[in-house]
Amino acid sequence: MNKLRIGIVGLGNMGMEHAKYLIENQVKNAQLTAVSDISLERLKQVAEQWGSDVQRFESYEALFKSGTVDAVMLCTPHYDHPRLAIEAFTCGLHVLVEKPAGVYTRQVKEMNEAAAASGKIYGIMYNQRTNPLYLKLRELISSGELGEIRRTNWIITNWYRSQAYYNSSRWRATWAGEGGGVLINQAPHQLDLWQWTTGLMPKRIRAFCAFGKDRDIEVENEVTAYVEYENGATGVFVTSTHETPGTNRFEITGDRGKIVIEDDKMTFWRLRQLEPEFNRDNTSAFAQPECWKFDIPVAASVTQHLEITRNWTEAILQGTPLLAPGEDGIKGLTLSNAMLLSTWTDNWVELPIDEDLFYDKLQEKIRLSTKAIR
Amino acid sequence: MNKLRIGIVGLGNMGMEHAKYLIENQVKNAQLTAVSDISLERLKQVAEQWGSDVQRFESYEALFKSGTVDAVMLCTPHYDHPRLAIEAFTCGLHVLVEKPAGVYTRQVKEMNEAAAASGKIYGIMYNQRTNPLYLKLRELISSGELGEIRRTNWIITNWYRSQAYYNSSRWRATWAGEGGGVLINQAPHQLDLWQWTTGLMPKRIRAFCAFGKDRDIEVENEVTAYVEYENGATGVFVTSTHETPGTNRFEITGDRGKIVIEDDKMTFWRLRQLEPEFNRDNTSAFAQPECWKFDIPVAASVTQHLEITRNWTEAILQGTPLLAPGEDGIKGLTLSNAMLLSTWTDNWVELPIDEDLFYDKLQEKIRLSTKAIR
Repeated sequence: MNKLRIGIVGLGNMGMEHAKYLIENQVKNAQLTAVSDISLERLKQVAEQWGSDVQRFESYEALFKSGTVDAVMLCTPHYDHPRLAIEAFTCGLHVLVEKPAGVYTRQVKEMNEAAAASGKIYGIMYNQRTNPLYLKLRELISSGELGEIRRTNWIITNWYRSQAYYNSSRWRATWAGEGGGVLINQAPHQLDLWQWTTGLMPKRIRAFCAFGKDRDIEVENEVTAYVEYENGATGVFVTSTHETPGTNRFEITGDRGKIVIEDDKMTFWRLRQLEPEFNRDNTSAFAQPECWKFDIPVAASVTQHLEITRNWTEAILQGTPLLAPGEDGIKGLTLSNAMLLSTWTDNWVELPIDEDLFYDKLQEKIRLSTKAIR
Repeated sequence: MNKLRIGIVGLGNMGMEHAKYLIENQVKNAQLTAVSDISLERLKQVAEQWGSDVQRFESYEALFKSGTVDAVMLCTPHYDHPRLAIEAFTCGLHVLVEKPAGVYTRQVKEMNEAAAASGKIYGIMYNQRTNPLYLKLRELISSGELGEIRRTNWIITNWYRSQAYYNSSRWRATWAGEGGGVLINQAPHQLDLWQWTTGLMPKRIRAFCAFGKDRDIEVENEVTAYVEYENGATGVFVTSTHETPGTNRFEITGDRGKIVIEDDKMTFWRLRQLEPEFNRDNTSAFAQPECWKFDIPVAASVTQHLEITRNWTEAILQGTPLLAPGEDGIKGLTLSNAMLLSTWTDNWVELPIDEDLFYDKLQEKIRLSTKAIR
C-alpha cells in the first residue's frame, strides 16, 4: 500500500477536525476517501464543501463494507467506540478510536481482543502523548533520572464548563448519553498520562466523586482520588469542571528528587545523592541531601491530533511503533471506572476492577436517571 | 501589674529558645523569673549562664507554687501539656502552651474547660499565625474577597526528617513518647492554619496514613486526607517527612477565583464576576469568566515565636486580643486525631470525633508497641 485510504465515522467536533487536516493533505501518504454520519444534513453540507472525492455514507456499516477505505477513525459518542471498532476489525480495517476507549472496561476488553485477533493497526487518539512535556517526563522517569517513584499528585481542575455547555446537547453529561462526566469526557487525557508517564498503575483506589455540583447535571463533575501503588508509592488525582480559573499541576516525587509540570514548564529538583543512600549514611538530625533546581528544556507543543494520525498512518504503512496503541485505552478507563465504583460503593476498589459490578451499577444509574436519553 | 513575671517549664529546644529572647528583654514589660526542668544538669548549665535572676526548680509543681511567676510557658513533651496547664490554672497562673495542645482531644477539652473556669489568659504557640502570608489569606477570605470557598488543597511535604533525626531521642516518633508522627510533631501548624485561614472545619474526613514508611519508626510519616465541609466544599491535605525536597503549596478556590501560597508568595487569580453569576447568565458553551492575576503584596515574615509571646504578654497586661487563643489548639488536634482514626478504622470519621474511641485506639498502640518508652 502506497497511500492509506481513511474513512471517518461521525462528523461531530472531532470528526470534522480530523477531516480538515486530512483534506488539506497534512498527513503524508494518507487520503480521506469516505465519511459517514447519521445526519443527512451534515452529509449534504460536506458534499458541498469537499465535492465527490470523499464518499458519503449514511451508516458506518455501509462505509466499512464499501471497499473505499483501508482504515477508519471512529469519532462517534463514547458508548459506540467498542462496537464499531469490533465491526471495523471484522471488516479488515485498521482503527484509530477517539478517546475514551469506551464507557466501561468490559466492552473495551472485547475491543482489545478483536484488535489482537485481527492483526490490524489499532490506535487511540491520546493526542496529549505528543506533548513534549509529557514525552520528556516519561523519558526522565523510564530512564531512572527520578529514581523510584514515591508520590504522584495531579491537580487538573482547568476543565471549566458552565451550565450553557451542558445544555448545548441533550446527550451530554447523562448516564445514558455519555456514561459519566469529567472522568469520561474531559480528564481521560490526564488519566492516561498519569499512568503512561510514570509507568505505574495503582493497585487500589479510594475516590470521592461529586455529582452535579453547582450544575444541573447527573454525572460527576468533581473528583478526588487517592491511590496506592504496588511499590508503596501513593498518589492523588483531583479534577473538576466547575472551578475557574483551574489548575493543571502534576508533581512526582522520587528517590532522586521532584519534578513539577505546571504552566507548560517542567522543573526538576534533583538530589545529588539518592535519598535512601543519604538517609542510610547521614548522622545529623536535621540534615537534608543537597538538591539542585533545574528548568528542564522542553520543545513547544504543536500539532497534537495531527501527530497521532500521522503516527498511526506510518504504523500502518511502514510499521513504525504506535505512540498511543489502542490497547492502552483500557488503562485510563480502568482508573475512571474505579473512581466511580469507589464512590458508588463508598469503599476501596482493588485493580483490576470488578467489571461486571461496574457495568451493573452503570445500568442502574441509567435506569434511575431522570435525564436519560436512549 | 506593670511587669509580667514569666516561668518556663521544660528547657528543651523550644524552652531554651523562648528563654533566650526573654533574657534579652525582647518582650516589653516581661521578665523570665523562673524555670523548671527534670534535668539537674540542665538547671546547673542555665544557672551558670543566667545567674540568680532566674529561679530554678526541679519540678513544675514547685515553680507553680513558688510565688515567683504570674504566667508560665509550657514547653514539655506533648502528652504533659494539658495536665500541666490545668495545674497552672489552678495555681492562678496565665498559660502559654507549646503546640500541639496535647495528644488526644479528651485531655485538651479538659484543659480548655480549666482555662475557662480560671479566667486566666490562655494562649498556644501557633507562631505561624504571625506569618503575614497567612494573616493576609485569612483577611482576604474573611472579608469575602475570595467568595464562598469551594476547594482547599495543601501539599506540605517539606518536613524532611532522616533516620538520624528519629534516632536522636528515644521518645521521638513513638506512640508512648509522642503519641504520633508528622501529624502531632511537624504538621500541627499547617493543620491549624488550614482551618484558621479558611474559617472552615470539615464535617467529615477520610484519611490514609502510612506508618514508618522508609524509616524505622512506628508512627505515621505520610498522610493524605480528603475532607468535606458543611458548605459542600472539599479539601485535600498531604504531608510527609520522608520526601526531599518537599513542597509547601496551599491552594484555595472560591466563587471569586483562586489563591495559591507557594514559595512565600501569594497569587490571587480574581474573577471580575462571581462564578455562580457568570454561570447563571452565560449562554456560550465554552466561555469562562474574565480573570485577572494579581501578586498580593505581603510583608516579610520575621519574629514568629517572639510575636506570639509578645501578644500573650500584652493580652495579660493590657487586655489586647490573643492572636492564638489556647482554645483553638483543639481544632488542629481534632483534624490530626481524625486522620489517624480514619486510617485505623479504615473508614470515614465524622466531626466531632468519637474521642473515647480515639483514646482507646491510642492506648492499644502504646500497649502493642515494641518501641514504647513509658
